Amino acid sequence: MAKNENSHDVIIIGGGPGGLTAGLYTSRGGLDTALIERGLVGGQISTAEKVDNYPGFPDGIGGRELTELIHRQATKYGLKTIIAEVTSVKPEGKQIAVNTTQGDHHARALIIATGSERQKLGVPGEQEFSGKGVAYCATCDAAFFRNVPVAVVGGGNAAITEAMHLTKFASKVTIIHRRDKLRASAVLQGKALAEPKIDFLWDSVIEEILGKATVNSIRLRNVKTDTMSTMDIGGVFVAVGLKPSTEFIRGIVDIDQGGYIVTGNTMETSAPGIFAVGDVRQGSARQAIIAAGDGATAALYAEKYLAE
Amino acid sequence: MAKNENSHDVIIIGGGPGGLTAGLYTSRGGLDTALIERGLVGGQISTAEKVDNYPGFPDGIGGRELTELIHRQATKYGLKTIIAEVTSVKPEGKQIAVNTTQGDHHARALIIATGSERQKLGVPGEQEFSGKGVAYCATCDAAFFRNVPVAVVGGGNAAITEAMHLTKFASKVTIIHRRDKLRASAVLQGKALAEPKIDFLWDSVIEEILGKATVNSIRLRNVKTDTMSTMDIGGVFVAVGLKPSTEFIRGIVDIDQGGYIVTGNTMETSAPGIFAVGDVRQGSARQAIIAAGDGATAALYAEKYLAE
Repeated sequence: MAKNENSHDVIIIGGGPGGLTAGLYTSRGGLDTALIERGLVGGQISTAEKVDNYPGFPDGIGGRELTELIHRQATKYGLKTIIAEVTSVKPEGKQIAVNTTQGDHHARALIIATGSERQKLGVPGEQEFSGKGVAYCATCDAAFFRNVPVAVVGGGNAAITEAMHLTKFASKVTIIHRRDKLRASAVLQGKALAEPKIDFLWDSVIEEILGKATVNSIRLRNVKTDTMSTMDIGGVFVAVGLKPSTEFIRGIVDIDQGGYIVTGNTMETSAPGIFAVGDVRQGSARQAIIAAGDGATAALYAEKYLAE
Repeated sequence: MAKNENSHDVIIIGGGPGGLTAGLYTSRGGLDTALIERGLVGGQISTAEKVDNYPGFPDGIGGRELTELIHRQATKYGLKTIIAEVTSVKPEGKQIAVNTTQGDHHARALIIATGSERQKLGVPGEQEFSGKGVAYCATCDAAFFRNVPVAVVGGGNAAITEAMHLTKFASKVTIIHRRDKLRASAVLQGKALAEPKIDFLWDSVIEEILGKATVNSIRLRNVKTDTMSTMDIGGVFVAVGLKPSTEFIRGIVDIDQGGYIVTGNTMETSAPGIFAVGDVRQGSARQAIIAAGDGATAALYAEKYLAE
């Protein structure tokens, strides 16, 4: 059992569905558990207006509402929430030190549930116009682009889903993709191709985002012909992939080329007592329900690890 | 797409949280999906009076209510439910034939979510008095044992949970365990040891269950001293483990010594296009939320498999 307020049985880093469910299980299992979250509890799903595929809510539920319910449930069993940024993690014998902007914490088991962040394009104007026409989440920001032509960059499921959502607001949606075909599922592709508000611009990349107070155009390059062109546009939604948040744990646990943490079926990483769940884990299909399941698995195996 | 009513994109066997969530995801993904369940949809969790640890329901939810919600959600997206027993599964080229008591079905992908059944003691009287004093589910049957002394056989979390539940009904609960210590978690052990209605009988096994119309006593053997004894008892709850329901798939996919199906992180088995989720899968920590997460993972990887 924990000796002082900075010493715990289990520390969880990240407050999305994976971290919250891990906390629900370890707390309910009688383990002193601290969950460290750098921003608002809820994770990426909490920005979703409506979640239709979390099992148990046939009429859908708001992303924030869902994560608030899970947070309330975990807190009821004793989960402590600390708002702080983790600066480093260091195994020290049987203990793991987690240094944060709100002091140093220790635990015998650690569950990493830090999820992933959206990838940036890395072109001139992207940073400058971020929040002023450049966006990364249609569900969050689409309503700001009513009757305005917008571009979506990417070719995966996320890009097409964002584009479909944007058709409810924007005057026209152009999907800009560097290849000549999409990675998105057949069903989604079919929907996008049948949607009159959606156009496709193949073999193309954005070279620069231009504007005054807000975005008003983009410079495009055709990657096959190297032809440059300019398109008038009111907004750019970037949906080119995700970057797992694992910088703070590099060198401590095995990480793959994409930056994802490698785990076995028990969610344990290459370091004893350190587990990883949800979007940050290699092979995760990145859904709230999958992260939640991972969280329960990691919690139960962490409990076993601590009992040994 | 499916050609006739017995031909599907995906077949799911088993209607617990794992199978239902897989069906929610594949149906919502536009795949023609049939879920085959031999009894009532819901699986083992549906016998739980109250589920406190399914994330999203801070005040708890009835097991049956939870699975009915997920079934409704999946059906909304087109999941078809077939009540039938599966007699055999045969891969036939790129198709998988699933023969049932309600006709033969085909699909290109199969998700096995058959869960597990409770292990029997295998002693004289057990079969004879099953449902007449011998029971396997305290949540289901405890109310039939008001003011009667009962025994619970086992030493794991399930046994202790069953015993705690029984104290609300029975006059006395004796936990009979073959070893001199429990496998159950420290928290549960602490609770059981503090409960005045619960007694422990260590190093002991039941050799025979006796009665007339119903159970009235058990013959016991101390495994250390080989001493025999008789105990007057009104009921015997067996909680000695689970047996995965995998007989129908033996020889088709890799199964471990315990009878559990071996899968990778994608839930795919050793046979292409065949996935396994939930309690039937090797290493599963056997929780509704874990089965649900597995179901979503298998569905998304099955969708990928079918798109290739």
